[in-house]
Amino acid sequence: MSKPTETERCIESLIAVFQKFAGNDGNRSKLSKTEFLKFMNTELAAFTKHQRDPGVLDRMMKKLDLNADGQLDFQEFLNLIGGIAVACHESFLAQK
Amino acid sequence: MSKPTETERCIESLIAVFQKFAGNDGNRSKLSKTEFLKFMNTELAAFTKHQRDPGVLDRMMKKLDLNADGQLDFQEFLNLIGGIAVACHESFLAQK
Repeated sequence: MSKPTETERCIESLIAVFQKFAGNDGNRSKLSKTEFLKFMNTELAAFTKHQRDPGVLDRMMKKLDLNADGQLDFQEFLNLIGGIAVACHESFLAQK
Repeated sequence: MSKPTETERCIESLIAVFQKFAGNDGNRSKLSKTEFLKFMNTELAAFTKHQRDPGVLDRMMKKLDLNADGQLDFQEFLNLIGGIAVACHESFLAQK
């Protein structure tokens, strides 16, 4: 195997991070509410620690949970990552 | 600044890779067809080199280009990455 490219490494990492958190309880291919909160407070703590409104994570979970099953599947998780990436990218473009 | 988490690193990498390829010609916040092909043949060469049908990248570009402006913006690019990640994740779950 040749060395993975940056894009391949990212895809692998996103799968690994999702599986790590989704594997904590219950369905191993979905993030429960508890697993989602753990993920947010660990992997995206720089974002969550600036939120003064304690309801913000609850509302994010509800918005991301498109099929309203109370859990996030991998596609719903990727929508979260994509949303943050788009916001970062736009803020970068606005600074230029 | 503390060390970025794996998720933060991925978000930064995806933005950096997009900007690197989108910056080659014309609009620096969009991937032209040429830039898309360059990206696919460089960053996702492991995928493209197994495609025997030369029309597959043309069809991917058309499918990803939701607003049909002949270019891919960052959200459209993320849909590509997400699609590949979901396919990899499902193939991983199926192997278990």
